[in-house]
Amino acid sequence: MLRRNFLATSTGALLAQPRRKPNFVVILADDLGYGELGFQGRSDFATPHLDSIANSGVRFTNGYVSAPFCCPSRAGLMTGRYQTRFGHEMNVVGKRNLDPNIGLPSTERTMANHFQEAGYRTGLIGKWHLGGHPMNRGFDEFYGFLHEGHFYYPPPYRGAVTRLRENEPPYDDDNPLMRGRNVVEEKSYLTDALGREASSFIERNGEKPFFLYLAFNAIHSPMQAPVALMNEFEGLRGEQRRLFAAMTRSMDNATGRVLETLRTRGLEQDTLVFFLSDNGGPTAELTSSNAPLRGGKGQLYEGGIRVPFACQWKGRIAAGRVSHETVSALDLLPTAMSAAGLTLPTNFDGVNLMPHLGYSAKPVERKSLFWRYGQNLAMRKGQWKVVKQRSNDFQLFDLASDPAETTDLAVLRADMKKQLLAELEATNREMAAPLWV
Amino acid sequence: MLRRNFLATSTGALLAQPRRKPNFVVILADDLGYGELGFQGRSDFATPHLDSIANSGVRFTNGYVSAPFCCPSRAGLMTGRYQTRFGHEMNVVGKRNLDPNIGLPSTERTMANHFQEAGYRTGLIGKWHLGGHPMNRGFDEFYGFLHEGHFYYPPPYRGAVTRLRENEPPYDDDNPLMRGRNVVEEKSYLTDALGREASSFIERNGEKPFFLYLAFNAIHSPMQAPVALMNEFEGLRGEQRRLFAAMTRSMDNATGRVLETLRTRGLEQDTLVFFLSDNGGPTAELTSSNAPLRGGKGQLYEGGIRVPFACQWKGRIAAGRVSHETVSALDLLPTAMSAAGLTLPTNFDGVNLMPHLGYSAKPVERKSLFWRYGQNLAMRKGQWKVVKQRSNDFQLFDLASDPAETTDLAVLRADMKKQLLAELEATNREMAAPLWV
Repeated sequence: MLRRNFLATSTGALLAQPRRKPNFVVILADDLGYGELGFQGRSDFATPHLDSIANSGVRFTNGYVSAPFCCPSRAGLMTGRYQTRFGHEMNVVGKRNLDPNIGLPSTERTMANHFQEAGYRTGLIGKWHLGGHPMNRGFDEFYGFLHEGHFYYPPPYRGAVTRLRENEPPYDDDNPLMRGRNVVEEKSYLTDALGREASSFIERNGEKPFFLYLAFNAIHSPMQAPVALMNEFEGLRGEQRRLFAAMTRSMDNATGRVLETLRTRGLEQDTLVFFLSDNGGPTAELTSSNAPLRGGKGQLYEGGIRVPFACQWKGRIAAGRVSHETVSALDLLPTAMSAAGLTLPTNFDGVNLMPHLGYSAKPVERKSLFWRYGQNLAMRKGQWKVVKQRSNDFQLFDLASDPAETTDLAVLRADMKKQLLAELEATNREMAAPLWV
Repeated sequence: MLRRNFLATSTGALLAQPRRKPNFVVILADDLGYGELGFQGRSDFATPHLDSIANSGVRFTNGYVSAPFCCPSRAGLMTGRYQTRFGHEMNVVGKRNLDPNIGLPSTERTMANHFQEAGYRTGLIGKWHLGGHPMNRGFDEFYGFLHEGHFYYPPPYRGAVTRLRENEPPYDDDNPLMRGRNVVEEKSYLTDALGREASSFIERNGEKPFFLYLAFNAIHSPMQAPVALMNEFEGLRGEQRRLFAAMTRSMDNATGRVLETLRTRGLEQDTLVFFLSDNGGPTAELTSSNAPLRGGKGQLYEGGIRVPFACQWKGRIAAGRVSHETVSALDLLPTAMSAAGLTLPTNFDGVNLMPHLGYSAKPVERKSLFWRYGQNLAMRKGQWKVVKQRSNDFQLFDLASDPAETTDLAVLRADMKKQLLAELEATNREMAAPLWV
């Protein structure tokens, strides 16, 4: 009862009279599947710092991203809008990232734009992958790279174990590490470096409110981990899994460093932290599991779009709660802006989660969630989902009883399929044609 | 008894009237320790093709090389002479391999010179590491590289697991793969490629006698193995060991390919094949074991200079014999030249092993073996060895009862120490000053 009273008091009182504008930290994992991490129930190796976010805050069992690939998913996250509204539909890899006609349209405003204008210090540490340069899109600071992935060490990858597929892309071609707009050399393992830079960002900018977007390229290919860390995972079977574990552990350690900096700087109660993945896991490529979901990265089945998703705000939101509400990466923008008392833009698709995150746990006011990626379409509405994946017909699943999408109810519940399809088609008509293919 | 008679007859009769000059194949492993391979009693993974050489021929428990490092060891092997006689004493790494003043002196003649002059087709497949170009030193053909090591795939090492130390040297700088004198691109895993080239050399040159020097860079650093092969070694503990196993297995497979080519071409009974390592294993770097010997690569303790050592010549030498005679890489030149009926040069340090390899198994007529590497000195004479390793005083070991060099008998057997030191000093006076340091 003590806990309840504490939460009730703190949530009510502090939200009513915030001491200062809260900081906002988004920690994004790359290609991390739903079935991974301790807080998702995976137990083959520990991720204590990432787990601590879920344990100190709210873990979502139905947390989604707006696309099954990195680039469009990040466009949705950054704008709070279905990226298909503005043609940012298809993924971009390699040197196409350099094409000035590809990337987030200049008419779109990012989360960073909003916070920058509100006087926040804004920083991106890690992967951008939205075309152009993040400092043209609202970020005051940048340390990272622009394309879809990056090697974790400079060649020849000294101090690392590296496992490359035959068709491993040349991620680093025309894709240097940069500080601001300048190319830098980085000697540390990249995930460690991103943790260091994120921690430094907080140290340097803790006096005024900040928005920190820490976009790890872990656990995206290439599979590369420090030699010294590999020894900790001898108990795991398979080169690939050990590498995955070591890469994930590095991300966990780097996250721990960021959380520790918030703690030691006394900023924990001033900082809303979200952690999620940008899309589901490419299991064959990385071992990253989407269990118990169907499919993975690149698909609109649950495995491609439902991800590990948690947030913390010590003393301000519920602690240790598991929420089964349907939430989305699109919700981060309205949630964080609302928490900061900023005026929301008129054209966003997410939902402010703050009323749900507080002690009263109000239901999330969500009508539906829509997805389009090329010929693939899906909509979730309550417990129901229609999905058209590649050449399949539209299928209907009851996610409440069948989250693994095993049983197509399209015939048995033709009524529900029809209802969802009508809404899907209406939403789809609002979308723009893809700006590139 | 049948076997005995067969061997007695074939060795006697055929050596007396050789059908044709025998081919000679030297297969050299790199940095492979005494404690490794199935035929040396190591059982954590199988090396059936390399084992087959020992099982089809003679395995030596006291087989030595003339130096504890690659470069001088190869100088001894190629000339049949103590490399310290001509100043080729110290190892050479990196761009120093390009220095025209470093490498095998032009006054020295190689095994390849001798066989080339006798009408043999001569080929080096693999690592040279003796300065200059092997086609200036008696080789008609060359496929390989010139320096001390090479990556096994072109960067970024697609299709491979790669484990690099922090201080891993840039082996490939100014050290391209070459066919003859031309730079080539190689897409296969290098060990596979060397097996392919060696097999092709035999296919192309089987009509006349040939000398093939197949100098693998396996198991030298960098640690790099095909992704597909790594899965076979899940039962082994440690990244490094699995990589070592996969690299060694590749060498075993490539050796199998060479032996199979000899077999299918009907050349087995015409071909004397030696397999040995160029020096002991750097255990910390590679896991390569020198058990039960003391020390490893770089040292004049047994672990640095006593190596896996075996030979086969189907129907011509003993099969399945284990020999405890003291033999040396220096013996290959006089042995192979004698087997071919060539006139031996006047200035070699090795011993013709043919009388020992035949059924009568005559003792090897060896007075002593001498080693010098910088300030380190050693001599073996019968069961006794004196060794001065770095700042230690001369130690005396009885290798018959103490092959692991645990008990220094320098005081107890001062007489023997004095006797060996006198011979060591006399031999040492014959040696030249190092040509480089």
